[in-house]
Amino acid sequence: MADAQYRSGDSRRAFLRKVGVSGGAGAMFATMGALGLAPSAQAAQREEPFRGLRAGDFSVSGRGAAKVVVVGGGIAGLTTAYELGKAGYDCTVLEARGRTGGRNFTVRGGDSTTDLYGNKQTARFSDGQYMNCGPARIAQWMVTLDYCRELGVPIEVFTNVNADAYLYNESAGMTKPVRYRTAKADVYGYVSELLAKATDKGALDKELTSDDQEKLVDFLKDWGALGDKLTYEGGERRGYTTVPAAAGTPGALLGDVPSASEVFASGVGRYFSFEFGFDQAMLMFQPVGGMDQIPKALTKAVGAHRIRTGAVVKKISDTGRGVSVTYAQDGRTRVVEADYCVAALPPNILAKVPHNLGSGVQSALEAITPSSAAKIGLEYRSRWWELDHGIYGGITETDQDVTHIWHPSHGFHGERGVVVGYYNYGDDADSYAKLTPKAREARAVAAGVKIYGEKYRSELATSFSHHWRQTPHLEAAWHDTPGGPDDPRYKPLNEPTGRVYFAGDWLSYTDAWQHGAFTSARKAVTALHTRVLSS
Amino acid sequence: MADAQYRSGDSRRAFLRKVGVSGGAGAMFATMGALGLAPSAQAAQREEPFRGLRAGDFSVSGRGAAKVVVVGGGIAGLTTAYELGKAGYDCTVLEARGRTGGRNFTVRGGDSTTDLYGNKQTARFSDGQYMNCGPARIAQWMVTLDYCRELGVPIEVFTNVNADAYLYNESAGMTKPVRYRTAKADVYGYVSELLAKATDKGALDKELTSDDQEKLVDFLKDWGALGDKLTYEGGERRGYTTVPAAAGTPGALLGDVPSASEVFASGVGRYFSFEFGFDQAMLMFQPVGGMDQIPKALTKAVGAHRIRTGAVVKKISDTGRGVSVTYAQDGRTRVVEADYCVAALPPNILAKVPHNLGSGVQSALEAITPSSAAKIGLEYRSRWWELDHGIYGGITETDQDVTHIWHPSHGFHGERGVVVGYYNYGDDADSYAKLTPKAREARAVAAGVKIYGEKYRSELATSFSHHWRQTPHLEAAWHDTPGGPDDPRYKPLNEPTGRVYFAGDWLSYTDAWQHGAFTSARKAVTALHTRVLSS
Repeated sequence: MADAQYRSGDSRRAFLRKVGVSGGAGAMFATMGALGLAPSAQAAQREEPFRGLRAGDFSVSGRGAAKVVVVGGGIAGLTTAYELGKAGYDCTVLEARGRTGGRNFTVRGGDSTTDLYGNKQTARFSDGQYMNCGPARIAQWMVTLDYCRELGVPIEVFTNVNADAYLYNESAGMTKPVRYRTAKADVYGYVSELLAKATDKGALDKELTSDDQEKLVDFLKDWGALGDKLTYEGGERRGYTTVPAAAGTPGALLGDVPSASEVFASGVGRYFSFEFGFDQAMLMFQPVGGMDQIPKALTKAVGAHRIRTGAVVKKISDTGRGVSVTYAQDGRTRVVEADYCVAALPPNILAKVPHNLGSGVQSALEAITPSSAAKIGLEYRSRWWELDHGIYGGITETDQDVTHIWHPSHGFHGERGVVVGYYNYGDDADSYAKLTPKAREARAVAAGVKIYGEKYRSELATSFSHHWRQTPHLEAAWHDTPGGPDDPRYKPLNEPTGRVYFAGDWLSYTDAWQHGAFTSARKAVTALHTRVLSS
Repeated sequence: MADAQYRSGDSRRAFLRKVGVSGGAGAMFATMGALGLAPSAQAAQREEPFRGLRAGDFSVSGRGAAKVVVVGGGIAGLTTAYELGKAGYDCTVLEARGRTGGRNFTVRGGDSTTDLYGNKQTARFSDGQYMNCGPARIAQWMVTLDYCRELGVPIEVFTNVNADAYLYNESAGMTKPVRYRTAKADVYGYVSELLAKATDKGALDKELTSDDQEKLVDFLKDWGALGDKLTYEGGERRGYTTVPAAAGTPGALLGDVPSASEVFASGVGRYFSFEFGFDQAMLMFQPVGGMDQIPKALTKAVGAHRIRTGAVVKKISDTGRGVSVTYAQDGRTRVVEADYCVAALPPNILAKVPHNLGSGVQSALEAITPSSAAKIGLEYRSRWWELDHGIYGGITETDQDVTHIWHPSHGFHGERGVVVGYYNYGDDADSYAKLTPKAREARAVAAGVKIYGEKYRSELATSFSHHWRQTPHLEAAWHDTPGGPDDPRYKPLNEPTGRVYFAGDWLSYTDAWQHGAFTSARKAVTALHTRVLSS
């Protein structure tokens, strides 16, 4: 599952069907309520309990803590060291980049990057402004929130869906954007009217009893705001041009209501499913001050002395009695010897590291392919989207190559703010990557001007773009794992290969989400610790 | 329009139709886009511009600023004094209660109230915990947000809609709550399936061309997550009992999918319209630290020396040359003489104050009737709704007499939190009001236990209940204004009666919202200032 609209839901659902996991779930539940609605209250949507390691685990068993080398200082690697550290393991984390966090990267003023094409950028964002280049939102059910709680990282709402944000489908002939609220009122209004009419005509007499039909039509009248004749005629849900206020100002409703044909032709309804996704439904959250508060807190908890940054792994060798990891740092070649290794690099990077773990490991790593995604942060001198458009956070969806435009979820009413001018994937992301940062900005701004008007250009202060496929040592936004993470070909990665364990969101059912990295690390930690305690 | 689900939308829409305002709105718009979708980007949903008063207004005109007595220190009264003060008016605000803000009342530990039945309560909330007894949310289009910006009151998201909050309809046979996300997946899934089937049968051949039908079905497949046979079969949108995580943990989907008949019989769909309301659609906002940050900031801006609290107005007399307001304070009777008066008390209270403004004013005031609403704040020792249920804010909707249950929108991951155990209206509010505070708590908790289980009782630390109809000097949550605020009978209130002006949310199209109080005050200020400048 990717943090990406077009992948949300369908691909994973299809996958779950394929591996046959959904069929057996019913047996796990308590007796259904009288309605057949599944019990959901006390059946919390949380992960299976993870039994955290404890300081006493070794003193009780009489065994000594092992030494572990963790390759990769992203969320999976840091979590591995953090959790193992609770029982006293002696961990060393090797991280190729100058900072921990991996794809959890928050860019602020002064931060520099150089991409694989050689484009060097230094962010000029003002104090307090930032962009989460990688993960940027957290669902309520994700263990990521549990780590925020445990690590003391404050959270705030991420504004994933906003009735006042825009939808813009130029390819369908739209010359102006339409607000979500307007689009929903129209689409739901006509869906409601059409279904009520069909019911009235007896088209559902085979499907529903007359009693059910009555309940359905009652629902439709309310849900679609239908008039007495069961027709959709617009109304306040669409919005106003002048809002209702004091006596004398009843408000002016937004103009003529389009026909059903016009509404369905506009294609605005294609964006509605996003908010129903298990991973995307509001409420969503973000750490206060930037997503990298999470790796920063993990880094602190692990201990900076256990983490070596700028350490590029060159070789992983299972010696039978331990693991030897060779790495380059500051122009020198060094080696870490340990009892075990947890390899927490992205698979596309790991596949390039020489090892003696066998061809099964190598072919499994190579079967997993990297995907592209990118963002550009546009810092504006004013928060014109709040002042002129009344948009306080949320996402504008487009059929332009910028795909998503994000309004900031923090700093409301502040002087400045960073809009994510594109969050796009695949070919769109790669085609922007080939441009210079300045040209990326120009192209992104041109798209935004069509939607928001000239202030999208005239208020711009500075920009910073980040493309994951072109980022050294990572070279991917997320990964495609054919057959899913439990496909037999990945068995050498899901079970330890000798003394080496693997961890990462790419070995989970929530790839591209930190939840996947956290839970994959927990799985590796549990397996390793169980082995050490019983060895 | 009231801050109340059952009044949202329909009543005002009906009213707008009645007064015929919606018909003429179309003429105001620019040419529609190719799709017939109304232009919405640059046509911002904001109030007609208010021309704020300036310090130079009088020096330029050569006239002197007038003296104004403002009766009532709620939002309308404070705003009147604040806006008039910008041009140097000499304002005196008379407020009967011990604090400004009126119905904008945030209760914290140590605050005491005594209701009209004589129930005295002192809140025992912990430090940092509070309940907004009155207004608690702000839509993006409301001028309330403009005042937050102008006054420097920081805002944060109010969690009005949450996919993981619950719906509970005991009267429909539900024995367990269902999450919003599950209910939406099921209702939308079947609406989608039924409409796709009806289309397939040709039931819409008169309404839609075959091309339109194809677009409709494409939309329905995506929106309802239909399978290849255009049937709804459940899926990830409903939720999981074990969430997808690392390899080996694909997740267990929430149990058996109910039938269409069961879903419509459950009545869960009745709650979906709420979030489409112009006034309730997400994103909503609240001031950081409590809604009373707004009156506190206004009070500071007006100047405490201009505000007399504990001042109960006894008489309002237009003397022809000025206005004389008699009030009781500290057991003494006092009088304020001024050039003008702005009466910003609730109409039900104002109707009891002797005056010489004529029978037209009196009958207009008496035509407007007060409504009941109430809340109880339940402070818990733990945030079990986050820990056990994964619910971070949002509203659980019920058919119980508690009506709405609100999870706190702030303090996520904190030690404690205040749940609004009931937010109810009318007879429900009045029936709770008749109980002792302890009995109110017991009844509210019993309802919550049915939905959330025993922790709803066992984790409770303390409670505080507030009933507006039974609150001295206010005696209403909001008001019913037959015919709407521009009905001819209210003309003596909408135009000045002699030297007296009227202001309040009850003289607006957004009654029960601060937006109505702000804009009504602005209207009175503009009228008064125009008169003074031209006199």
